[in-house]
Amino acid sequence: MMRKIPKHIEGYGEVREFSGVFSDMNVKKLTQVHVKPKCPGERKIFLSIKEFFDKFPPFDGMTLSFHHHLRNGDSVINLVFSVLERYDVKDICLVSSSFFPVHEPMVKWIESQKVVKIYTNYMSGPVAKCVSSGKLKYPVIMQTHGGRARAIESGEVKIDVAFIAAPSCDEYGNMNGVYGKSACGVLGYAHVDADYANHVVAITDNLVPYPNTSIEIFQHKIDSVIVVESIGNPKGIVSGTTQITKDPLGLKIAKMAAKVIEYSGYLKEGFSFQTGAGGTSLAVAKEVKKLMISKNITGSFASGGITGYMVEMLKEGLFKTLFDVQCFDLDAIQSVKENPRHQAMSASLYGNPHCKGAIVNNLDVVILGATEVDINFNVNVTTASNGMIMGGSGGHSDTAAGAKLTIIVTNLVKARLPIVKEMVTTITTPGESVDVVVTERGIAVNPKHVDLIEILKSEGLSLYTIEELKEMAYSITGVPSEISFENKIIGVVEYRDGSVIDVIYPMKG
Amino acid sequence: MMRKIPKHIEGYGEVREFSGVFSDMNVKKLTQVHVKPKCPGERKIFLSIKEFFDKFPPFDGMTLSFHHHLRNGDSVINLVFSVLERYDVKDICLVSSSFFPVHEPMVKWIESQKVVKIYTNYMSGPVAKCVSSGKLKYPVIMQTHGGRARAIESGEVKIDVAFIAAPSCDEYGNMNGVYGKSACGVLGYAHVDADYANHVVAITDNLVPYPNTSIEIFQHKIDSVIVVESIGNPKGIVSGTTQITKDPLGLKIAKMAAKVIEYSGYLKEGFSFQTGAGGTSLAVAKEVKKLMISKNITGSFASGGITGYMVEMLKEGLFKTLFDVQCFDLDAIQSVKENPRHQAMSASLYGNPHCKGAIVNNLDVVILGATEVDINFNVNVTTASNGMIMGGSGGHSDTAAGAKLTIIVTNLVKARLPIVKEMVTTITTPGESVDVVVTERGIAVNPKHVDLIEILKSEGLSLYTIEELKEMAYSITGVPSEISFENKIIGVVEYRDGSVIDVIYPMKG
Repeated sequence: MMRKIPKHIEGYGEVREFSGVFSDMNVKKLTQVHVKPKCPGERKIFLSIKEFFDKFPPFDGMTLSFHHHLRNGDSVINLVFSVLERYDVKDICLVSSSFFPVHEPMVKWIESQKVVKIYTNYMSGPVAKCVSSGKLKYPVIMQTHGGRARAIESGEVKIDVAFIAAPSCDEYGNMNGVYGKSACGVLGYAHVDADYANHVVAITDNLVPYPNTSIEIFQHKIDSVIVVESIGNPKGIVSGTTQITKDPLGLKIAKMAAKVIEYSGYLKEGFSFQTGAGGTSLAVAKEVKKLMISKNITGSFASGGITGYMVEMLKEGLFKTLFDVQCFDLDAIQSVKENPRHQAMSASLYGNPHCKGAIVNNLDVVILGATEVDINFNVNVTTASNGMIMGGSGGHSDTAAGAKLTIIVTNLVKARLPIVKEMVTTITTPGESVDVVVTERGIAVNPKHVDLIEILKSEGLSLYTIEELKEMAYSITGVPSEISFENKIIGVVEYRDGSVIDVIYPMKG
Repeated sequence: MMRKIPKHIEGYGEVREFSGVFSDMNVKKLTQVHVKPKCPGERKIFLSIKEFFDKFPPFDGMTLSFHHHLRNGDSVINLVFSVLERYDVKDICLVSSSFFPVHEPMVKWIESQKVVKIYTNYMSGPVAKCVSSGKLKYPVIMQTHGGRARAIESGEVKIDVAFIAAPSCDEYGNMNGVYGKSACGVLGYAHVDADYANHVVAITDNLVPYPNTSIEIFQHKIDSVIVVESIGNPKGIVSGTTQITKDPLGLKIAKMAAKVIEYSGYLKEGFSFQTGAGGTSLAVAKEVKKLMISKNITGSFASGGITGYMVEMLKEGLFKTLFDVQCFDLDAIQSVKENPRHQAMSASLYGNPHCKGAIVNNLDVVILGATEVDINFNVNVTTASNGMIMGGSGGHSDTAAGAKLTIIVTNLVKARLPIVKEMVTTITTPGESVDVVVTERGIAVNPKHVDLIEILKSEGLSLYTIEELKEMAYSITGVPSEISFENKIIGVVEYRDGSVIDVIYPMKG
């Protein structure tokens, strides 16, 4: 490890330090689930959040969980806390798979130290800013999508009440995310909450007659159903369509990344692939698609958060299957509703390192972004270079660990800052699991891949060492000035296996 | 309780005596699952059962589980044990959801006391005969479908290796039951084995390219995949079509049962219904169908093991949804493959009393058979009147407990034996959960339903007390002679909540 990570962190506990991507693969004992059985005739329904909390009173120190399929259109967290205001409750722990700008109302809960602890996989907007400035009592714990599932299954994270936003739900809790005014698609991140929380609440604005087939999460996992006016703002939930970048640099990077894939040897019959919803990532998908067509290749699967672009490739027969943990756009929602080859998956199935084999384990190639990459191939997608939290791993570390070929696509320089640098501000994904970095100025291959370096050189790609890329970046931006950080730890970055790969300090001043 | 049940039974342990249908509904702590995580690249596949056992050696006292979706066409149990013969292993416990005549080869394992303990929900044929004659070292433990799921989830039954027959499977264990030469339909009973066994094996005769969508049981639950020549004989797996009885008595009973349903008040919009695959049960379905059409009623769901007849009702819009735990015929398999309203369900979702609300909880009416019914409305479907095991609860007790109206349809007399009698030989389903008994000679309503008795009387149905039905039966058959039973307990009948509702003694001589 490059950093000094304390052995004990207040509000987090004992630290198990990261010691390698698959260093902890012994038999795991999952935690015990508590179930309050339901008799026939016992009802689950509540007509307001207040009615629910009146029956199941909130208590000090409770842990509440949420999932982020409603993204920046989510109303559920804010709604629940607007009702909690009426109760005198403190020391709340929040386990939410992501935070977005829409969650601004949570800032006052953090500032008043009523919410004291947060687990999340991604955060942006006012909550991220508030946490970055050191206002959360205990360090935020940044997990991966697979790591969150693992932590809940292992019992490291114990959830008292899980609120599952259910765009379509019946009175016994059978739900799906594909129908209703707040349709968001697959509910992949919420499965583990439904499986393990002490009390599982389906919260819906679309109560339908029983039974609500087809069902993604089933009634026998659900304790209560709360009906509210609206769980979300459709405008923030999904984009109409996701778009390929038009930026010439992005397109150049995409073409280079596609060449790396082409020459890597992985682009063959049965190819499996994941790429994000970003413009450059989609541009890589477009290049890969061209290659698959010209080489007459049928891929086995694409996975992750799914976009219309991937749906198109499924329809055209370029992939046999999509494994979908969340839908990014309306095309993806439509597809998962009607195409049995578009398969919903839970976060555990997607990326949990301690299951019997996640989908990421079978990935050939994943395309990922970076806020910073360093000369050890470590990638930061958690903080800006000034230490401000503006993201998080999500599935970044999970797919990087699983895929045979992990390609980081990024501009060499952004907003006059070097992206490739001596040392990342925060390690999200360890260099051990990163194989290739593609920038508009050139490509760096992790030196452990001697064969791949030879192949790509012989194919005439612009190969550099990662140090050379760093020097190129510095020659444009100058050597970045040292930033001073405070001593207080404001964030703990957990690797997917629950070890601590880094800590986050707030910037001074 | 009517019987004296010992407080402790050798080979079973402490007895918790049955004390009411929903007497045990406190918070339950489920058992801890053990998971051996898989790294990328780690393979799961074995090309023979021997290869598997060579890597994971069988050991004395191990518990193996199986499911019965291949019914009397199942080859898996026999195959596994034909390989186990090569190993010196004893004190085996078998957890198989059912045994059929095809499992005759298991007799020698029982007789040689290498298999010493069996949990099952149903048994018929040579294994049942062998167990009934007292040759199994410890008493067979007869569970319900929901009770089996509960027992495994609670940790009362701990499975070392689960063998899941997978008619379609990929090398990472994604499986479904609807494709392949051994297609059997839904794999509902096997889900709990996949979720809880220490080592989960998918055993298949149809290895397909990865990924095997659509998937019923997912890769992250599967440790190993064994490929064999054949997992079953299609002739024994499913019947081509299930048929309505042509027997006039059966048809008469069906018409009477339908009238009970009609006048009960449950036959209205949103009606939910379950009936078995037997000829008389299907005849009731036919009558119910006529009534639904004439009254213009759309039902919410039908559930259980699914037949072509139910598929037809789904297609005709008479039910919105089918909840299917096993497919009884080819029409059902075809339907679950292509109709999203034909929903596969696990045994836990189906009938587990200690989940957060099983499907049976929402049943309005269930039609069930009986081998014997007694004057306390207790039903026996486990043993013949001579104590010989020839069946078992399956979902009988689960649906009876859940449904608002449980109707037993049976001939009053069969093979010169009274079906309605003073006391059943074995209690499978407690009278507390049985509402109406319909025979060709008349109907008896559980006296606790005062209103229903009045209604049915006023509609002119032939109502009798259960004692009167018994007298009618005895007047035909004579009072059945007392049968002497041995003192040794050969079977323990567990109610769905794990309490002991009865024990089975072998007949003398």
